[in-house]
Amino acid sequence: MSGTVARARTPLTGALRDIQAPVRDRLEDVVGEMHRIVTDDLPLIQEVSSHLLQMRGKMFRPTLALLSAAAAGTPDSRAVTLAASVELMHLATLVHDDSVDHSVLRRGLPTVNSMFSHQVSVIMGDFLYTRALMALVRMNDFEIMRIIADVANELTIGEMRQLSAVDALAFDEEAYYHLIRAKTASLIAGACESGAVCGAGEFREALSAYGDRLGMAFQIADDILDYTGEASVTGKPGGLDLREHKVTLPLIAALRQVNGAARTRIEELFAIEEPDDEVIADVIAIVSDAGGIDYARQQGARFAHDAEAALRVLPESPVRSALTDAIAYVMDRRS
Amino acid sequence: MSGTVARARTPLTGALRDIQAPVRDRLEDVVGEMHRIVTDDLPLIQEVSSHLLQMRGKMFRPTLALLSAAAAGTPDSRAVTLAASVELMHLATLVHDDSVDHSVLRRGLPTVNSMFSHQVSVIMGDFLYTRALMALVRMNDFEIMRIIADVANELTIGEMRQLSAVDALAFDEEAYYHLIRAKTASLIAGACESGAVCGAGEFREALSAYGDRLGMAFQIADDILDYTGEASVTGKPGGLDLREHKVTLPLIAALRQVNGAARTRIEELFAIEEPDDEVIADVIAIVSDAGGIDYARQQGARFAHDAEAALRVLPESPVRSALTDAIAYVMDRRS
Repeated sequence: MSGTVARARTPLTGALRDIQAPVRDRLEDVVGEMHRIVTDDLPLIQEVSSHLLQMRGKMFRPTLALLSAAAAGTPDSRAVTLAASVELMHLATLVHDDSVDHSVLRRGLPTVNSMFSHQVSVIMGDFLYTRALMALVRMNDFEIMRIIADVANELTIGEMRQLSAVDALAFDEEAYYHLIRAKTASLIAGACESGAVCGAGEFREALSAYGDRLGMAFQIADDILDYTGEASVTGKPGGLDLREHKVTLPLIAALRQVNGAARTRIEELFAIEEPDDEVIADVIAIVSDAGGIDYARQQGARFAHDAEAALRVLPESPVRSALTDAIAYVMDRRS
Repeated sequence: MSGTVARARTPLTGALRDIQAPVRDRLEDVVGEMHRIVTDDLPLIQEVSSHLLQMRGKMFRPTLALLSAAAAGTPDSRAVTLAASVELMHLATLVHDDSVDHSVLRRGLPTVNSMFSHQVSVIMGDFLYTRALMALVRMNDFEIMRIIADVANELTIGEMRQLSAVDALAFDEEAYYHLIRAKTASLIAGACESGAVCGAGEFREALSAYGDRLGMAFQIADDILDYTGEASVTGKPGGLDLREHKVTLPLIAALRQVNGAARTRIEELFAIEEPDDEVIADVIAIVSDAGGIDYARQQGARFAHDAEAALRVLPESPVRSALTDAIAYVMDRRS
């Protein structure tokens, strides 16, 4: 989500580097493995793949998979392939999301749908996803396959929930958690759990719970940023969710408090097909004044606290510290 | 591809019924299994799924999977789940294809993209595909997983080849075979091969070869139909491939024979973004006169012959007869 500008400005990328320190070498192997997995001799596939691998993000999910695999000592060598497959699956979902949302930019680079075509983005998402699957199948571990297949399906259910939730002012806090668990937390939990299967099997349950809570905190932080973030830092305009009629936790919480003119203004925004900047700014102010952002922060902190609690069974080690730091990173990120 | 009208008119559906006779009971179980696999409590998913299962086609791939599983006697019970997963994967690719091609009708019913939205069709394709995968993973057979994962990726490569081949008059016979093998034959071969793993392991190689050749003949017949078929029977207008600048075997063969005005007319069609009925009719006549359709028929017959040869190692049985009849069905179909 951050471009070069954001990276230069925030001190948090430094923190990410620290989180990645215990698995730095293997993380570089993951990049090589991703290239190996998507290699194909069809020129169009080569072209799209190299564009996509160039827009590679922060490698947050592979980092968590590798850290989880190392939580009990030395991970087995399959962790690299697993981490690469998880990141490719994530990339596949981003390609389909961008296609579905007609997004133009991702991580500061043109999306596949804008640079090539809608057709290419649908098929290339399928390509990346099935290549990741081929690599996973060759690991010969049914536990891992089961975790990842279930997650892959959860992700699609999350997207379908998202499509069902647009324009629904009746959407409540429970439905929101249901949605973000499927859309975001499932893959982060799956990365941690399948990572644990590669070397730290005794902490599988704990790391799965950690990943789930971390993923929930991650998405809540993301949804708060849409209300509070500065475009110059986040790399995308504020209020984008409201513009697209996406109902997230700050609004859900605010709607429980507001009446009269404020409520009418919110309803107005959801009645307009393409809300303008003015109504968006108004609703952001209403949500903030009604304590919606504070409430979302509290709930994010609650999940963060639960994530930390899940780590308590792990032995003290640089890996456990890195996993703990990942929670702070998720809570503090500005892009 | 055929609507009710076509079914009422052609005697071939009867032939399909004969082909399906040895596995009729299990084929009905496959329908139930497909419903079970896609069950979900999200209303939007329920709605799209029931629409999709209603537009279910001829169940050609599940039939082949079940027949293959029964080629050496009694198939194991997993064949039903396998056949259901293969058909759901096929359905997932149709949903994405229709989305990519902006198609409006499929099997006489509105496509998901036209009835719901482009977004829903991309995500629902992913949903169907990942649900099929979940069911396959739970079969606990790495041979089957490997076959299906490889096929799933081949299908996407086929689609990418198709996107690369549009407007390319330089596209040759070898590239065409490469394309249709990935796009069509791979899944039919995979259905037969993974079917064989469920009960007829000793014929795995033979049935894979049979499925490959049958799939090649199937796609060539389909491409010929686009030149010769009547819209009232096929359910789609003739010359659709030419209209979309898709280069198939009849044209490839004709281009080796034509010069002068005929060649210029073909080049004209490919230079116009939306060719009209007149130029399409002209090019169909040119291709036919140049022997392109006859050549494609010969090549289809060659693959059909090879498919039949692959079956020779199988013991004589109603199943082997049905597999042989499936070749005639593919060659003779008019819709």
